Amino acid sequence: MEVAAASARPVLRVAAICGSLRKASFNRGLLRAAAEVCEDSIPGLRIDELDISDLPIINTDLETGSGSGTVFPPAVEAFRAKVCQADCFLFGAPEYNYSIATPLKNALDWASRGKNCWADKPAAIVSAGGGFGGGRSQYHLRQVGVFLDLHFINKPELCVQAFQQPPKFDSDGNLVDAEIRERLKKVLLSLQAFTLRLQKED
Amino acid sequence: MEVAAASARPVLRVAAICGSLRKASFNRGLLRAAAEVCEDSIPGLRIDELDISDLPIINTDLETGSGSGTVFPPAVEAFRAKVCQADCFLFGAPEYNYSIATPLKNALDWASRGKNCWADKPAAIVSAGGGFGGGRSQYHLRQVGVFLDLHFINKPELCVQAFQQPPKFDSDGNLVDAEIRERLKKVLLSLQAFTLRLQKED
Amino acid sequence: MEVAAASARPVLRVAAICGSLRKASFNRGLLRAAAEVCEDSIPGLRIDELDISDLPIINTDLETGSGSGTVFPPAVEAFRAKVCQADCFLFGAPEYNYSIATPLKNALDWASRGKNCWADKPAAIVSAGGGFGGGRSQYHLRQVGVFLDLHFINKPELCVQAFQQPPKFDSDGNLVDAEIRERLKKVLLSLQAFTLRLQKED
Amino acid sequence: MEVAAASARPVLRVAAICGSLRKASFNRGLLRAAAEVCEDSIPGLRIDELDISDLPIINTDLETGSGSGTVFPPAVEAFRAKVCQADCFLFGAPEYNYSIATPLKNALDWASRGKNCWADKPAAIVSAGGGFGGGRSQYHLRQVGVFLDLHFINKPELCVQAFQQPPKFDSDGNLVDAEIRERLKKVLLSLQAFTLRLQKED
Repeated sequence: MEVAAASARPVLRVAAICGSLRKASFNRGLLRAAAEVCEDSIPGLRIDELDISDLPIINTDLETGSGSGTVFPPAVEAFRAKVCQADCFLFGAPEYNYSIATPLKNALDWASRGKNCWADKPAAIVSAGGGFGGGRSQYHLRQVGVFLDLHFINKPELCVQAFQQPPKFDSDGNLVDAEIRERLKKVLLSLQAFTLRLQKED
Repeated sequence: MEVAAASARPVLRVAAICGSLRKASFNRGLLRAAAEVCEDSIPGLRIDELDISDLPIINTDLETGSGSGTVFPPAVEAFRAKVCQADCFLFGAPEYNYSIATPLKNALDWASRGKNCWADKPAAIVSAGGGFGGGRSQYHLRQVGVFLDLHFINKPELCVQAFQQPPKFDSDGNLVDAEIRERLKKVLLSLQAFTLRLQKED
Repeated sequence: MEVAAASARPVLRVAAICGSLRKASFNRGLLRAAAEVCEDSIPGLRIDELDISDLPIINTDLETGSGSGTVFPPAVEAFRAKVCQADCFLFGAPEYNYSIATPLKNALDWASRGKNCWADKPAAIVSAGGGFGGGRSQYHLRQVGVFLDLHFINKPELCVQAFQQPPKFDSDGNLVDAEIRERLKKVLLSLQAFTLRLQKED
Repeated sequence: MEVAAASARPVLRVAAICGSLRKASFNRGLLRAAAEVCEDSIPGLRIDELDISDLPIINTDLETGSGSGTVFPPAVEAFRAKVCQADCFLFGAPEYNYSIATPLKNALDWASRGKNCWADKPAAIVSAGGGFGGGRSQYHLRQVGVFLDLHFINKPELCVQAFQQPPKFDSDGNLVDAEIRERLKKVLLSLQAFTLRLQKED
């Protein structure tokens, strides 16, 4: 197991998943910023974004076998393997029509089939958008987490009201607001602390 | 406008959408049974199931133009046209991981873009599944309806606990329970009455 | 039936209920402003605020009898009578701990017992507070409305972020922001239109 | 600190709170059964039911002072002290009108004011009732827990459909079903395990 030089604590692997497939997605921008924050100032946390753009839309007729022996389409198998390897999750969760963005729900559904890859792992949510900054999506996602057996951090919550002044993102979806970056760092530190707390062995 | 012979009331066109792509889906079975009930005993209501299996997973980078002039992929355009023509909606809404099934959310999202095709129309939800029979999905769908401006009937609700005895569906997903069929008819009559009430002109 | 002079349309009686018992409640301030708006510029709508401060906390052991013959404590009987007489409802719905304020839930519960006084009537929600301006409370209240058989307007929604600049309320809870007052008027007009639409007779 | 004889693990103090004030409440029956299960077969867990019947309905005008120096009515102070002393919580959470029962919300609200007494503690929910057995209430309560910073166990969930055959409760609200008692025990063991996991010190 890889360890962080300074602390001899293991480096936690965070799988980051963006719920939007849009290139210039603000939510993907949040995940890129999170990866930078970890590289710059949180040695115990490493973020890898998982690509979900090639997952077929879920249809269980595409599976063969059942239970833990279920066989999935190749793109699904590859995605599931990465989910299983992660220590915890960071969701960039845009709100589409007052609920979870479809591509994110698709990813959540595929990795829950057969052997549930999310089970018993900590997670955090960040979102950006108009209105409540994606907030309504976050609470639906938390309900999904009950069945998936995800352990979400409660605080801090981060819902970025993307269209308020001053500008929060540039036209490529890069986060350009220092205060949001600072709040993002607090989310990451809380996710790290909660993951370590839940991982501790007897 | 087509009219029902006996009553001279217009025949309401119900667009039925099944949230699962699975061939033997119980929820599609509910929609088939609903269509039969209408043919047999509700002359003022005609159900047409819309196929959503060829919709790409939503990615707004696939759109060109904006606002009411937005151009969508062909399968999306065809689907949107049918949604726009309907008088009201019947959703067969399976619960995936305590929320809305991904394929249904995909369809809802596509037809909300640009000119919102759902706006100001009545709708009803039926569902089948384990646990609460799809109930958790129904409340998330109702929240989506606030933004889409759907007017859901409140009563009766129909959540079929598909795995309780006696059997509710055969292995092809056909509804085989007479009591559920009777409850389904009450949902359809309520949808019809609510649609007529909301359509009345000054 | 009272009629509005200018239009010969009936004056709709709106029962307004504030979810907070606090004297200087922002949400009560919204209801006072709504009453002023109606007096000033919506002749077809009259708002009466119902006092819920003397309702005991709900305990069905305080009831005698059952069904439509249930007898309630005197304060509950008086409140229920006023709910039954209203044409529609306006809820001032503060958010307490991410859900419905307790005093409002208490009022909703009491008037739902025995003969459900809320049944089949239109309603609108306004709220004010920190964070999402009471938004989370509104969606829980909408779910309650499914069982109570309330027909909520979908649009516009009004969630006042009470602590943003410029000031929205004075220290007595009076609304002092003209733009919010204008948005409040649009909520009232939407409630009026939806109520008339649902009331139309064959 | 009290310890369980056999294991030398500390005895965890569970504060149990019933959301209904009704004497023969099924949900209080679940809490009584839970206390018996702990006494009989879970030496590391002790359940104390907190009485919430004398709490006034929440009105923050009844408070004096502010922040951690806030002074509450005597019944509230007594309740808050007990909440603060608990290691974790067990909620008996009836569903009233598709959401949280008013008396439970009242208790949650009072102990969240000033210094939040619920913060960072594990919790479990059990419920009984018609329909989904209280299920809709449980998800609203989980959303409340995000703000209160409660850590709910995800599994198992227990929603007792109280009116299905065979009988689940006698007329005094005592649990009489052995299978439900066994499922209740699994909830308690999960709460115990999660509490120990979260309490572990470096």
